[in-house]
Amino acid sequence: MKDLTVGIDIGGTNTKFGIVDREGHVYHQGNIATTDYEEFNDFFDGMADTMREAIHFLPKDTRVVGIGVGAANGNFYNGTIEQATNLKWKGVLPLASMFIKEFNVPCLLTNDANAAAVGEMIYGKAKGMRDFVMITLGTGLGSGFVCNGELVNGRHGIAGEVGHTSVNPNGRDCNCGKRGCLETYVSATGIRRTVYKLLADHLEPSELRSISFDELNTKMITEAALRGDVVAQHAFEYTGRILGMKLAETAVHTDPEAIFLFGGLTLAGDLIFKPTIRHMEENLMPLYRGKINVLPSGLSNQAAPILGASSLVWDYLDRQQRKSAAG
Amino acid sequence: MKDLTVGIDIGGTNTKFGIVDREGHVYHQGNIATTDYEEFNDFFDGMADTMREAIHFLPKDTRVVGIGVGAANGNFYNGTIEQATNLKWKGVLPLASMFIKEFNVPCLLTNDANAAAVGEMIYGKAKGMRDFVMITLGTGLGSGFVCNGELVNGRHGIAGEVGHTSVNPNGRDCNCGKRGCLETYVSATGIRRTVYKLLADHLEPSELRSISFDELNTKMITEAALRGDVVAQHAFEYTGRILGMKLAETAVHTDPEAIFLFGGLTLAGDLIFKPTIRHMEENLMPLYRGKINVLPSGLSNQAAPILGASSLVWDYLDRQQRKSAAG
Repeated sequence: MKDLTVGIDIGGTNTKFGIVDREGHVYHQGNIATTDYEEFNDFFDGMADTMREAIHFLPKDTRVVGIGVGAANGNFYNGTIEQATNLKWKGVLPLASMFIKEFNVPCLLTNDANAAAVGEMIYGKAKGMRDFVMITLGTGLGSGFVCNGELVNGRHGIAGEVGHTSVNPNGRDCNCGKRGCLETYVSATGIRRTVYKLLADHLEPSELRSISFDELNTKMITEAALRGDVVAQHAFEYTGRILGMKLAETAVHTDPEAIFLFGGLTLAGDLIFKPTIRHMEENLMPLYRGKINVLPSGLSNQAAPILGASSLVWDYLDRQQRKSAAG
Repeated sequence: MKDLTVGIDIGGTNTKFGIVDREGHVYHQGNIATTDYEEFNDFFDGMADTMREAIHFLPKDTRVVGIGVGAANGNFYNGTIEQATNLKWKGVLPLASMFIKEFNVPCLLTNDANAAAVGEMIYGKAKGMRDFVMITLGTGLGSGFVCNGELVNGRHGIAGEVGHTSVNPNGRDCNCGKRGCLETYVSATGIRRTVYKLLADHLEPSELRSISFDELNTKMITEAALRGDVVAQHAFEYTGRILGMKLAETAVHTDPEAIFLFGGLTLAGDLIFKPTIRHMEENLMPLYRGKINVLPSGLSNQAAPILGASSLVWDYLDRQQRKSAAG
């Protein structure tokens, strides 16, 4: 009997899910439109129906042993999504307990960056690493810490909010209510803001001058930089400098073997990695220099959210086994 | 048979040791002058002689089950003291293996702040806490992280160097070679530098104007502040503001239940805790506000280094027991 897990990634627009084995082979993939459901209970019913159908058509020698969910504002301890700003449904949503009741298997839920960290450990380049940091660069900047081989959830289940450390207390407005948070500079949104700041401050010609703020995306900035656009190149240098300076601070907290970067921005390769590594090394305490690897994530962007979510279940089962062995 | 451990705190001037039980009762205390020994091997022989004598006079129904050592630049994984700036003996000193050979019991060694963190967990106010941070305010600023109930040593055994995160990249010279590190502002040395800066910049009368930089200490600054000295009061406010701002960043890494402050500066009570807590709360990401306790350490300053060092052994034996139970 082959054990499989369901990995679910709840995004503001789409909810993707997949059924995978321990090696990361995907047996089934599907998705439903998150925005189709005005009520959370209807969303749950729609999701459960779709999952039941998918499970029904799995090979006979397989069984689903758990469900993992990654969602912004997911609370690991409570199995709830709490006051998510990217979803229509407000309040505290007890999703894990509802899945447990419906499917009679364990259900683990955490925020998307923590799920990505566990995914890197189970399926990616962090296999066998006991101490590393995951940085996800999307609309915001998420982070997940693994110390002594275990995901750090923290006392309140909200660990890993490095995106809300300070770059400049009088800096850019942040969604969290503060100003100058790291994610207002280093994220898909942050680099767009940087491009617009550079276009405002300087006179250099740039192909990006013809693109509106709403249209501009990371891919356009990357391609412009590769074509030699000076503004786009400066935007990457600026983003990498700030990320490097802040990673030099994060590194001395938990002394990781590696810091993995994940997300659309990392597809720019050297454009983002080179300044990040250079400025991290320059700003690191000398004792740490040359010791911390900054690496692209080993998860493909495509399947990563599903693998991250499903990996929560494998990690949980591993820990249960260790615990029961320890009596 | 009562199990006891030896706790050793190696300081630049004095090396203190104590023999204690699991409850923190001290059966014996002693110390030797670190500076008396030009050669590391002679120091080790002197220390071993003194310990053997103390062990000889212990009650008959006791036995020593391990040795714990706290030392600046202690490397947990290697059991070595590496390139310590506060000791005469240079290079890599394999102290743990020498103690193991001499006394035939486990010997654990780590830096003093990590030892204090484990001490807080075994003997202090962090009993039962799974996620907390220890900040030690001495000549420098040390830190130790406990996540998921375990001390975080990191990949290279050097985790917890929050004292070397940046307050101002163009700020005060730091021993580590960088500029503007947190410990150049927040530590016994840091507050002295702040007093001198304030005396230089302002005209307020202050009793501290009659004291040289070399003579000035935390106790004098505290007493002056309590007597209403405006410069001394400003120095505490300034120190607390910087500490609070940086703790707001540290907190969002690992989401601790509490941050413990330890050391001479904390004896100033509200003078340091009030501005620290106020500025931490103001600078915290809103999701974290009101959740993180900033507390004075539960270890008395007197016995703390010995208890911290000896607690490494209890923690090690606990982990060995869990591991062997797990097969």
